[in-house]
Amino acid sequence: MIVAVNVHLKKGVLDPQGKAVHHALETLGFKNVNDVRVGKQILIDIDTDNKEEAIKEVEEMAKELLANPVIENYEIKVKE
Amino acid sequence: MIVAVNVHLKKGVLDPQGKAVHHALETLGFKNVNDVRVGKQILIDIDTDNKEEAIKEVEEMAKELLANPVIENYEIKVKE
Repeated sequence: MIVAVNVHLKKGVLDPQGKAVHHALETLGFKNVNDVRVGKQILIDIDTDNKEEAIKEVEEMAKELLANPVIENYEIKVKE
Repeated sequence: MIVAVNVHLKKGVLDPQGKAVHHALETLGFKNVNDVRVGKQILIDIDTDNKEEAIKEVEEMAKELLANPVIENYEIKVKE
């Protein structure tokens, strides 16, 4: 089973990467972009068929390693 | 409207970040992880209410800037 963890900087935390992409898009002529946030998507291929168990385990992984709780939020989604 | 662009290295392209996360997870005791891939999730807040129009425009952004077609794949999903 593949579980996706989307990790993004919390609102209010400066996102220089997002600003850079936003500026580049405007330079390329994309004028109707209000904001851009760049984060990580971590795809974890976990050896189980039990959805609840997979989510529970990936939640622990996110807390222990994948996301910095001080400046980042994360969301977990089962992909396959 | 917020559109997510998930950008990942193509299969077969070495993903050192994914390898490092996989190794760290094993060290922390998570033993049932088959593989880890780390990519980018870019959230674009675009000034339109028309879903098709937003997807079409973000597709162009992905082709021109957000993904390197030689080594990366991308998928586009409307979030809100």
